[in-house]
Amino acid sequence: MASFFIKQETMVNPHRYCVIMCGGIGSRFWPYSRSSRPKQFIDFLGIGRSLLQMSYDRVLDIVPPENVVILTNEQYASLVREQLPGLADHQILLEPARRNTAPCIAWAAYHIAARDPEASIIVAPSDHLITREGVFVDAVLAGFEFVEGNDALLTLGIKPTRPETGYGYIQVGAAVSGDIHKVKTFTEKPRLELARVFLESGEFFWNSGIFLWKADTIIKALKENAPDVANTFERGAGLFGTPAEADFIRENFPGCMSISIDFAVMEKARNVYVECVSFGWSDLGAWSALYDNSPKNRDGNVTQNCSVLAYNSTGNIFAVNGEKLLVVDGLKDYIVADAGDVLLICPKAEEQRIKQMVNDVKLAHGDKYL
Amino acid sequence: MASFFIKQETMVNPHRYCVIMCGGIGSRFWPYSRSSRPKQFIDFLGIGRSLLQMSYDRVLDIVPPENVVILTNEQYASLVREQLPGLADHQILLEPARRNTAPCIAWAAYHIAARDPEASIIVAPSDHLITREGVFVDAVLAGFEFVEGNDALLTLGIKPTRPETGYGYIQVGAAVSGDIHKVKTFTEKPRLELARVFLESGEFFWNSGIFLWKADTIIKALKENAPDVANTFERGAGLFGTPAEADFIRENFPGCMSISIDFAVMEKARNVYVECVSFGWSDLGAWSALYDNSPKNRDGNVTQNCSVLAYNSTGNIFAVNGEKLLVVDGLKDYIVADAGDVLLICPKAEEQRIKQMVNDVKLAHGDKYL
Repeated sequence: MASFFIKQETMVNPHRYCVIMCGGIGSRFWPYSRSSRPKQFIDFLGIGRSLLQMSYDRVLDIVPPENVVILTNEQYASLVREQLPGLADHQILLEPARRNTAPCIAWAAYHIAARDPEASIIVAPSDHLITREGVFVDAVLAGFEFVEGNDALLTLGIKPTRPETGYGYIQVGAAVSGDIHKVKTFTEKPRLELARVFLESGEFFWNSGIFLWKADTIIKALKENAPDVANTFERGAGLFGTPAEADFIRENFPGCMSISIDFAVMEKARNVYVECVSFGWSDLGAWSALYDNSPKNRDGNVTQNCSVLAYNSTGNIFAVNGEKLLVVDGLKDYIVADAGDVLLICPKAEEQRIKQMVNDVKLAHGDKYL
Repeated sequence: MASFFIKQETMVNPHRYCVIMCGGIGSRFWPYSRSSRPKQFIDFLGIGRSLLQMSYDRVLDIVPPENVVILTNEQYASLVREQLPGLADHQILLEPARRNTAPCIAWAAYHIAARDPEASIIVAPSDHLITREGVFVDAVLAGFEFVEGNDALLTLGIKPTRPETGYGYIQVGAAVSGDIHKVKTFTEKPRLELARVFLESGEFFWNSGIFLWKADTIIKALKENAPDVANTFERGAGLFGTPAEADFIRENFPGCMSISIDFAVMEKARNVYVECVSFGWSDLGAWSALYDNSPKNRDGNVTQNCSVLAYNSTGNIFAVNGEKLLVVDGLKDYIVADAGDVLLICPKAEEQRIKQMVNDVKLAHGDKYL
């Protein structure tokens, strides 16, 4: 078909890659997020694209589409193919076991380095929300330039907007280039009083879990700081990018230790930097995060995908699949989540107990409702 | 098939009839009770029989099965035939419009009188609960004997067990025979303080809406006390029990005034008596009545037809259709009723507002959810 418009191709660097981590089970969003269809595969905001699809869309201005690599559990292979039909098979790496982020990131690095020894990589979760995508793109482009010119492990630190106790924090040290600083310390989720001090100090940023580095920089850092993890993949040298890779992973990945990249590398390495950014980010880690990031009606209720008639009800999140009418009276600050065969009614303040509830459901009913 | 046992036929008087009123829409039990399938057609207690079927079963020791007459709205004809397949067509009288109890009872009386001038009748709602059926049968047999020997309109008055504000009360006068007394007054639903006085006095009984009379006694009482209603049916003299009855009703019933039998006759007539009884009765008029009459777990929760995992939750009624798992935290004294396309969450104390909610739903969504 002829067209009067020619889309201007964005100049993207062919050595830049994006790894999207997509293997989580999102149990804090149960029953909306199910082990058979976790939260990253759900159109959480009701806009027609799942969180994974949004994560994919937003990196297409940064890396060539053929340089996007999805890491996921093998159980979700068909979901990924269904939601991102443009991907080639070699762009989807299927983990045969859940081993936290370090083994996942290590495999991706060895896989990409075998394909392109000059590769630089952004690693991003598939289930986060970013509202200001233009600012995100500019920040990532600046980050790529930094890691490509330096032997650096770079993490994105989000300028905090509230004394959030659900996130880890990064204390920044000296500025080295633009918004990029040396990292002074990583800090676990703080208590509220400490979170307030962090917020006021201006020195602490939320740990986003989004990383940039060259493939060879992270491989070197793994060898130095997490040799057990690195050795697993060193044994496959020469197999990555070949038809033998899948068999090698199936045999060796499950034996790798389960450890996060923060604990394995970032908190130990000396060449760790943080780019201080602000682009409307949330990890959508639990219902209250979704509540905070969703439009509310005048009673402060958030409604997802359903018709609601609410009386004397404020501060709730109503998430109901399908063509259901919800009639509610006298509920304040609750989660009401209906997922067909499971209905959850729980105070927002008790959402940290949902994981325990899921365990209880498993004990009572097996996997039927998970 | 041969049998070694011969069921002993209960001697039932062939002039005794039972009219079961079955046309209500049960909107106080919405969304469990829907206009397309109101509460009397639902297996409310999860025992395999609907309230209508239970009402039918319990009169078979009192009247011959062919003397049971069901009055219902024409919209429910197929539901009645499905639930009571043994009935002949002439035992199902289909009202073309909703006109409260007096026109319904009047039609039944004219219809039965045409078939059997010596008929005596028990009139009973289809959606009440009676737990002690043997006591009920004995009371009704005594009542039939009384009305067959006297020019009497008899109502069953239930000995109150609590200061219920949701029922009408009957004040009893002098005893005339066994448990049967003259009625002194009918009283509307009292406020709580008054209900307490009623309960302590021993003189007040709940108005059950169950009546006994001879067909000619109620027809005479209608002529004297509600001539407008009686005249509607007098115009059909000669047609009842003939093939012309249905057309006559279709043309004339909708024009009849809408009025309750209490207001039209019982509160006016002089020959009104009450039989004071106690057989575990509830009108199941609303969710709290169902709650009161259902077995509770140790947290005081009532569960209907569903699996529930409840935390910090007491005094609730959980009524969920189908194979659903309900997980609840922090709910006290609520109704949670899921009927497929509608989910209601409402404090038990606010159940009188459900009718208003149904109206609001109709305004917003038409008949879709009614």
